Amino acid sequence: MADLESIQQKIIAFRNERDWAQFHDPKNLAEALSIEAGELLENFLWKTTEHSRNLSPEELNTVNEELADIFIFLTYLSE
Amino acid sequence: MADLESIQQKIIAFRNERDWAQFHDPKNLAEALSIEAGELLENFLWKTTEHSRNLSPEELNTVNEELADIFIFLTYLSE
Amino acid sequence: MADLESIQQKIIAFRNERDWAQFHDPKNLAEALSIEAGELLENFLWKTTEHSRNLSPEELNTVNEELADIFIFLTYLSE
Amino acid sequence: MADLESIQQKIIAFRNERDWAQFHDPKNLAEALSIEAGELLENFLWKTTEHSRNLSPEELNTVNEELADIFIFLTYLSE
Repeated sequence: MADLESIQQKIIAFRNERDWAQFHDPKNLAEALSIEAGELLENFLWKTTEHSRNLSPEELNTVNEELADIFIFLTYLSE
Repeated sequence: MADLESIQQKIIAFRNERDWAQFHDPKNLAEALSIEAGELLENFLWKTTEHSRNLSPEELNTVNEELADIFIFLTYLSE
Repeated sequence: MADLESIQQKIIAFRNERDWAQFHDPKNLAEALSIEAGELLENFLWKTTEHSRNLSPEELNTVNEELADIFIFLTYLSE
Repeated sequence: MADLESIQQKIIAFRNERDWAQFHDPKNLAEALSIEAGELLENFLWKTTEHSRNLSPEELNTVNEELADIFIFLTYLSE
């Protein structure tokens, strides 16, 4: 299992190198997180709950990318 | 800063004690996360971005509770 | 079936009487609509699709209130 | 201004011709509406409220498409 603290530090360092903090007010970050949550949900739309428990490797990969995006915005918001 | 791994382990242990995993299919968890993201966003609705950067202690407290809820569902989904 | 145009005209008239248009920029209205969509979805969380097709009168009433809220913000945004 | 009732009747007729009602349980429709609301909001992410009041014709076109999608799912849910 990955070390979440070191991942969070990399996410913040990545942002600071690009000087993005100036754009990252909480209102826009909360919008971004909500949008990403919608993209996550889209992976399960019209699917049964059984299907959602048995995703293909490709589906799982897409879901994990959305979870990573949500974690990134959660990290920005928690700072 | 809290140790996120130990928090995640506690979240999962809390769930397992209550035998909730049977209800926690990814489709419903993604719905829950999306709903919580909406509740987070509600804290910034009609506010300026300036205001969102300068929340009162009470506002910050409510925001942090929503962030914790999102982290919990993200933990369930990442398992 | 209700006359949607006359309902929309009443929604806009209601807003104009209160001079709310100044607060109703599309960014905040889109946030509001997204928040209401989350509240609508909350009525179906953890429920089966079968249950969602067979709501009790009370559940149906709450759902209809959320649909009305979404229609109001959709009306503001469409203007 | 378009006649919303006749638009709604066309939306329902379009669905019935394709026999889609069997897939359109309220739980999934509420998910779809929430996802579309996120796509709408994406058009305003990182933009100022001033910008959101002064969209370019292309931006306005994309926004109107999202509003139409939301209206379609709202119509299905209201039936």
